[in-house]
Amino acid sequence: MANDESGAAVSTALAYYQAWTGGDFERAMSHIADDIVCDAPAGPISGAAAFRAFMEPFSRIVTSATLVAAFGDDETALLMYDTDTVPVSHAPGAECLTVRDGRITAIRIIFDRLPFEEARRRGAPAVGDVAA
Amino acid sequence: MANDESGAAVSTALAYYQAWTGGDFERAMSHIADDIVCDAPAGPISGAAAFRAFMEPFSRIVTSATLVAAFGDDETALLMYDTDTVPVSHAPGAECLTVRDGRITAIRIIFDRLPFEEARRRGAPAVGDVAA
Repeated sequence: MANDESGAAVSTALAYYQAWTGGDFERAMSHIADDIVCDAPAGPISGAAAFRAFMEPFSRIVTSATLVAAFGDDETALLMYDTDTVPVSHAPGAECLTVRDGRITAIRIIFDRLPFEEARRRGAPAVGDVAA
Repeated sequence: MANDESGAAVSTALAYYQAWTGGDFERAMSHIADDIVCDAPAGPISGAAAFRAFMEPFSRIVTSATLVAAFGDDETALLMYDTDTVPVSHAPGAECLTVRDGRITAIRIIFDRLPFEEARRRGAPAVGDVAA
């Protein structure tokens, strides 16, 4: 795993990553700014509540996560990770996070929605249907 | 754009990125190792010829590209970029590249295939159908 924790933003980004992949979404949200803006595959998301409604259901279907690389500077962190999830194995993601005053104020998230859509068509439960 | 070019791998990764987004795929391939392994959304790709067959058709449908962030160290580079393409606008991608002896030996690529699949279903030409 390539990892450069010299930038302050990377430390915050990794603390957030370890919290949500570790199943502690309360702790994950402690790193998120109230006015976060998120550029997600399905479109923009504004505010911590909407962000949580998007990200927490995904975190519940993750069965394992592996950090591939994490780099950044004082304000920006770039992470790539791989996950296995209930409907889709090998579902990697990448995030570019902006950190200000110790909180994450912006995230661009990239992942491939196609295998999730294909799993849904095969009858797998949608992300929101998976119980905590 | 967040950018740390201090790592040698980032310089090679950016030279490759600027070549393929600039339409010079010959120059892009000069940065690619013959035995490159690529982890792409549709599955693994081995060897420079197969990699070119995957990536060059995509490069032909890119109408604009913007680098979002680039970081790395001596061996690993992590890039995120946004592209507009003929069938899909706002099609961001992320790449984690391994560089050895000045050549890219491994790339993990993440992008969302769903909007391309949806465009195909609407009747847009498939990537391979777009003329150079």
